[in-house]
Amino acid sequence: MLTRIDHIGIACFDLDKTVEFYRATYGFEVFHSEVNEEQGVREAMLKINDTSDGGASYLQLLEPTRPDSTVAKWLDKNGEGVHHIAFGTADVDGDAAAIKDKGVRVLYEEPRRGSMGSRITFLHPKDCHGVLTELVTSAPVESPEH
Amino acid sequence: MLTRIDHIGIACFDLDKTVEFYRATYGFEVFHSEVNEEQGVREAMLKINDTSDGGASYLQLLEPTRPDSTVAKWLDKNGEGVHHIAFGTADVDGDAAAIKDKGVRVLYEEPRRGSMGSRITFLHPKDCHGVLTELVTSAPVESPEH
Repeated sequence: MLTRIDHIGIACFDLDKTVEFYRATYGFEVFHSEVNEEQGVREAMLKINDTSDGGASYLQLLEPTRPDSTVAKWLDKNGEGVHHIAFGTADVDGDAAAIKDKGVRVLYEEPRRGSMGSRITFLHPKDCHGVLTELVTSAPVESPEH
Repeated sequence: MLTRIDHIGIACFDLDKTVEFYRATYGFEVFHSEVNEEQGVREAMLKINDTSDGGASYLQLLEPTRPDSTVAKWLDKNGEGVHHIAFGTADVDGDAAAIKDKGVRVLYEEPRRGSMGSRITFLHPKDCHGVLTELVTSAPVESPEH
């Protein structure tokens, strides 16, 4: 079951400048940043609020690391803007399978690694009224050692 | 201060079909629907989660009611997809004024009526790295009579 808006993925040409825009304009700070070589992106997660399912909602700012990445091609066509939306679930495998059974194309055979150790998959935008839609299961929160 | 992702605004050609897609695919139900003649849209709000600031996050599905509305023109150019994102604040007037002082164009002189009695304004997408950005202050919650 999808229980939160996990993040809004925003494609940009220059991650540092875009991070600075969000900081200076709204006061949003970088919660986490990483490079995902598989996806060909450098990204920053800005945490906006916590959510009622125990998770949180973020903006995910994405800059391509290579010209043949999906995000680079998308930027060439569309310019900067909202690239995808993501819903959080405790069970990305089960939800992806159930959604595939309803006739929506799921883009990965198996979930892949997303931000902050999450497991993610994507649904085909043409099957989702034009919206590239991601499903995310967050990494388990590690208990502090004691 | 912006304290939540209030909603993601998604433009569609046929509101009823799109509502049915979100219900059948994900189980999301319509929380509220209305026509906003000023904006030239018929809309459905699907509540996804509550947020840590006492508000909630929604998907807002938007169908134009007339061909000269902003959303109709946007659909002609882009097809269906994410039209805007919205952040919730307790003080849309104060935040809009502060953001305007930073050089970001605010599209309304004064906030206007948004979904569910909220007060809203928009920031120019060219000043926001391509993202049409809305600021929302929800209507006060009415206390039950007693």
